[in-house]
Amino acid sequence: MTTPQDPLPIEPETDQLSIILFSGDLDKALAAFIIANGAVAMDMKVTMFFAFWGMNVLRRHNPPTTQKDFLSKMFGGMMPRGAKKLKLSQMHLGGMGTSMMKWVMKKKNVYSLPDLIKSAREAGVRMVACSMSMDVMGFETEEFIEGVEVGGVATFIGAATQSKSSLFI
Amino acid sequence: MTTPQDPLPIEPETDQLSIILFSGDLDKALAAFIIANGAVAMDMKVTMFFAFWGMNVLRRHNPPTTQKDFLSKMFGGMMPRGAKKLKLSQMHLGGMGTSMMKWVMKKKNVYSLPDLIKSAREAGVRMVACSMSMDVMGFETEEFIEGVEVGGVATFIGAATQSKSSLFI
Amino acid sequence: MTTPQDPLPIEPETDQLSIILFSGDLDKALAAFIIANGAVAMDMKVTMFFAFWGMNVLRRHNPPTTQKDFLSKMFGGMMPRGAKKLKLSQMHLGGMGTSMMKWVMKKKNVYSLPDLIKSAREAGVRMVACSMSMDVMGFETEEFIEGVEVGGVATFIGAATQSKSSLFI
Repeated sequence: MTTPQDPLPIEPETDQLSIILFSGDLDKALAAFIIANGAVAMDMKVTMFFAFWGMNVLRRHNPPTTQKDFLSKMFGGMMPRGAKKLKLSQMHLGGMGTSMMKWVMKKKNVYSLPDLIKSAREAGVRMVACSMSMDVMGFETEEFIEGVEVGGVATFIGAATQSKSSLFI
Repeated sequence: MTTPQDPLPIEPETDQLSIILFSGDLDKALAAFIIANGAVAMDMKVTMFFAFWGMNVLRRHNPPTTQKDFLSKMFGGMMPRGAKKLKLSQMHLGGMGTSMMKWVMKKKNVYSLPDLIKSAREAGVRMVACSMSMDVMGFETEEFIEGVEVGGVATFIGAATQSKSSLFI
Repeated sequence: MTTPQDPLPIEPETDQLSIILFSGDLDKALAAFIIANGAVAMDMKVTMFFAFWGMNVLRRHNPPTTQKDFLSKMFGGMMPRGAKKLKLSQMHLGGMGTSMMKWVMKKKNVYSLPDLIKSAREAGVRMVACSMSMDVMGFETEEFIEGVEVGGVATFIGAATQSKSSLFI
């Protein structure tokens, strides 16, 4: 029975992790999703927030046609369309380095980026696309893979304040 | 009245956020200041620490003349002078991509970097320039915009240990 | 003597810091080790996790000969061998900028990267090389400097959940 003398119960802080993926480089996206998958496997709640170039990770290869103005089309056309099209930040070597890295990863039984994304989604990693970045670069929700929410900077900060760690990648 | 049986009061941890802006890229500086402004709007205390290339964000366009040695002049001359001169980390395209991004942001009513800096300063975001970086690159406090403190790595770590989240951008 | 009325002792959270060094750039490695050394000097426990290009920081200049397959040799040959060989992320200028930066740092009595690594190691900073990155890039433990552990993503997440701050650099 609780009496006035009893100390307040100290709630254990739920272990949450939040990640902003700002980069659109293959190597950094891999790092982000390897960490996210590792954390959910350790029973943490994970929120991933995709801003700027990081949104390219979420793009579908064959998105439905949407009405776009000239600049949105241009941005969309210049940036890699989805996880399979990303390049290494270093040693891309006109595509050879990136292909080599993918080949080695497969040989060593390391998950590919599309597999890591699928696994994260199935494990309940929350994926949020930055609404301001979408607005500036002219992306629509229909262009993204399934299960992606849209949220503003407040969504990220909200998640970060409840997290043990926040990483900007 | 406090009696020996009373539990110690449990202080709620003040929500603080600390950011190291290491990068001098326009897109990363935008991300840092959008997060900082969002956090103060949500009543968090924010400390921004500017190191290496990130110090370029703080430079005035027309600084007072200071006595500099050859190397400091050279570093200063090679790096972008202030928030208006930064370039995108990708798709800079000889200036065209950066101009396009600024134009789109204006059209979509997104704050420009100088506006975000002003807003952060007025909202009480603490801005600290890294003393070691200043020393190495030969910057003087007078070359920075108003309201910038100078501090060492201990200042950053002190802020980080009192923060819910720390981001390296 | 403890009586039932006594409040539970509130354990001060040990101040820990965890850093993932993902980048192989000289400037970012310097930042990581400056922060790590600063934190141990302030009595924090520091774990550094080296992934992808960040592993290059750990390479010995003259490693023992190991049996390697073709791709591992190629990766190894294309990447900088150790702290002395890293380049600036900007203003490398074919080596001139990087040399200039090292020269200025020496003149200003700032520790060099090899000195910072030595100092971190002696102060008890825990250094962990990412096992998955080692596997993909074909690195063996013998190629790294002394005192480096090998660990997976769970090692990093374990450290991060016990840290006040985690930085992805």
